[in-house]
Amino acid sequence: MPPTMTSETSTKNRTQIHAARKGIITEQMRYVAEREGVDAELIRSEIAAGRLIIPANVNHTRLEPMGIGLALSCKINANIGNSATTSKLDEECDKLHHAVHHGADTVMDLSTGGDIPAIRQAIIDASPVPIGTVPIYETLTHVKKVEDITVDLLLEVIESQAKQGVDYMTIHAGVRKAHLPLVAHRLTGIVSRGGSIMAQWMMAHNEENPLYTHYDELCRIFQKYDVSFSLGDGLRPGCLHDASDAAQFAELDVLGELTQRAWDHDVQVMVEGPGHVPMDQIQMNVERQQKICREAPFYVLGPLVTDIAPGYDHITSAIGAALAGWHGASLLCYVTPKEHLGLPNKADVRDGVIAYKIAAHAADVARRRPGARDRDDKLSHARFTFDWNQQFALSLDPERAREFHDETLPAEGFKSAEFCSMCGPKFCAMSITQQIGDLAQAENAEN
Amino acid sequence: MPPTMTSETSTKNRTQIHAARKGIITEQMRYVAEREGVDAELIRSEIAAGRLIIPANVNHTRLEPMGIGLALSCKINANIGNSATTSKLDEECDKLHHAVHHGADTVMDLSTGGDIPAIRQAIIDASPVPIGTVPIYETLTHVKKVEDITVDLLLEVIESQAKQGVDYMTIHAGVRKAHLPLVAHRLTGIVSRGGSIMAQWMMAHNEENPLYTHYDELCRIFQKYDVSFSLGDGLRPGCLHDASDAAQFAELDVLGELTQRAWDHDVQVMVEGPGHVPMDQIQMNVERQQKICREAPFYVLGPLVTDIAPGYDHITSAIGAALAGWHGASLLCYVTPKEHLGLPNKADVRDGVIAYKIAAHAADVARRRPGARDRDDKLSHARFTFDWNQQFALSLDPERAREFHDETLPAEGFKSAEFCSMCGPKFCAMSITQQIGDLAQAENAEN
Repeated sequence: MPPTMTSETSTKNRTQIHAARKGIITEQMRYVAEREGVDAELIRSEIAAGRLIIPANVNHTRLEPMGIGLALSCKINANIGNSATTSKLDEECDKLHHAVHHGADTVMDLSTGGDIPAIRQAIIDASPVPIGTVPIYETLTHVKKVEDITVDLLLEVIESQAKQGVDYMTIHAGVRKAHLPLVAHRLTGIVSRGGSIMAQWMMAHNEENPLYTHYDELCRIFQKYDVSFSLGDGLRPGCLHDASDAAQFAELDVLGELTQRAWDHDVQVMVEGPGHVPMDQIQMNVERQQKICREAPFYVLGPLVTDIAPGYDHITSAIGAALAGWHGASLLCYVTPKEHLGLPNKADVRDGVIAYKIAAHAADVARRRPGARDRDDKLSHARFTFDWNQQFALSLDPERAREFHDETLPAEGFKSAEFCSMCGPKFCAMSITQQIGDLAQAENAEN
Repeated sequence: MPPTMTSETSTKNRTQIHAARKGIITEQMRYVAEREGVDAELIRSEIAAGRLIIPANVNHTRLEPMGIGLALSCKINANIGNSATTSKLDEECDKLHHAVHHGADTVMDLSTGGDIPAIRQAIIDASPVPIGTVPIYETLTHVKKVEDITVDLLLEVIESQAKQGVDYMTIHAGVRKAHLPLVAHRLTGIVSRGGSIMAQWMMAHNEENPLYTHYDELCRIFQKYDVSFSLGDGLRPGCLHDASDAAQFAELDVLGELTQRAWDHDVQVMVEGPGHVPMDQIQMNVERQQKICREAPFYVLGPLVTDIAPGYDHITSAIGAALAGWHGASLLCYVTPKEHLGLPNKADVRDGVIAYKIAAHAADVARRRPGARDRDDKLSHARFTFDWNQQFALSLDPERAREFHDETLPAEGFKSAEFCSMCGPKFCAMSITQQIGDLAQAENAEN
């Protein structure tokens, strides 16, 4: 009997990469191939090579599988989750709904307070997109102090989350004890929550990072449920000043090593990246990650290209994200307008998601992916022919486009009017051009 | 007696470039040098070479002179102005105030309806920043049909605006009759209002563009008041599909010729550019303009890097503007969220201006201008030390930063709290890093 999905999933290693390397095209691979209009065999071979992942926990039953990697379109992640001081379960499920409605391809639940497992279960049960977590956050809620975290507790929390159906987990295994002195010269030290928790633990115990020392055990848990690693960059820069420094790149070297070790276990892996990076350093950052991590998908947070615009960091970071996506990042983690100031509400989630849909799409266009510009061209055609309803329908946020148009010209008749509120009915650049086109055609016919 | 400002301004040619080429450092040059912390002689020599302009009409009495050119920081322009269907004088002055308050370096009054001269006079009288116009808009209001425009009317309107104190004017002299067939293959034809007016005029009369044929007369008017040319790109692409095509570059070649002709008259000139351009074509576009127009300052509109986000085009275009600024554009014309949908209100002006302050600043940082990152570093330091009031003060939009912070933690005590709403008081990445820093210092002291 040839190997089938059923026989495959009953073995210990249930990951997509394990199947891919055995030459099996899973139903998840087929689903992703169909979604993106590419060949299923391409998906399989890219997964086998580690260049593409399908984060699909075997226990995430509502999941509609999606893929992350350079062979596919650029994807975006939205973070939700409460903090110790704010937010409730219903609100988080509402944010999930909003994030997915507006186009988030994956969602991370970063809750740090309240009944974290219950919030997570509700989010997984409701979510058609992969759900990611940072298990160290929940771990911390089970102890009084960071130093009280034990290896057993860590593994227990991670396995319980894996069992719940979490599709990918940020694991800060790359921050090593030897790296800590490297952050001393920094302007903003360690800004990653997970990174600083691990740092504090290492300082308190004078021991190596337990996520690093017990990495193989994590791999074995991940094999069972097909959890994908999202290798956290605990030493990512927190400001332009600290970008591309020795601490960041020392950790990146470890992430390259951990990528290979995950692959040795047939576990899927993507790698997280900065953060805050001036525009002229972004391409170099992406290329360095791609080289050191042997083309494992790169998952970047922004990066923000300036630090002076709190309240608008969805924009400062969308600029960096667009550049990162163009140069080879596969997943862009959104930043909302509330970044550095507070937790995002529903409106912030919408603004963040759309800013990142823009960045990802602009990256796809700049990479000249086949068909990437089709939607632009269709919308431009609708614009030229004054087909307002079609313009709205093709927009990333049809509700907002319609709402803005209706602010000045609300009546339904204006949806087919051959002018808009910018020029008014007497004169319109678009309609003049149509006349020029007609005249040019007539002249051509004469000649 | 050596030449002084007084003797100079009493001659016929009162432009900054005329003075610069005579070796004179004007008070405007001194003012700009002081504002930007550079040598006044550098300003003079850059103006003499045509690489920098100070748009400063001799009749714009309230002006605080500013400079546009690669030797200085990247600048941004905000468009205001009513249309035939909307908006009033008070509203436009209010928009001017908002644009300048939030950081616009120059403002264009693009009014196309109502009492245009009165609106313009009020704006000039109130404005400390250079005011630009597109005189063909007013010209069109004096006739029934585009074809009725005469050369005399054009020159009369332009001179009357010059006399009023307009600092720079968009002149669509580069669209030539021979270019029109080149737009036939386009998806969105001619989207520049000025460009399509000139095209319609040329088609109706079967004659060359009067702004091109009477260019020397324009130069003589501009000499008298020191109006700077903003050479309009009437054939700029209106969508990604049309970017970098034959029509666009045919006009660019003419703009290069017109730049030289303005310089021959000792008239200041900058050159306008696209529009809608995929990210991977932006650097090429800037470099081509700089070459063909011999480093005359480049003034770009965005460009938008995707067409699918109406309602968010301040973001799609800020991405392109940041890239353009990095690669050598000197002035970035903002786009508001209402672009393609309606006329901007005050909130839109604010969103557009801040998005472009971000783009211009990110460009300055990426160009590694001396001191460009100082404000980022100061804000990052305030962030690291939990100095919230200082963070707000250093922000591009302090009001919004404070408002967002206060949504979750409004009490004044939280402005000095060593935590924020993201992590809460129990755990905070920033404060852990400070502990790590302290420990590292202590360890260093021991060793």
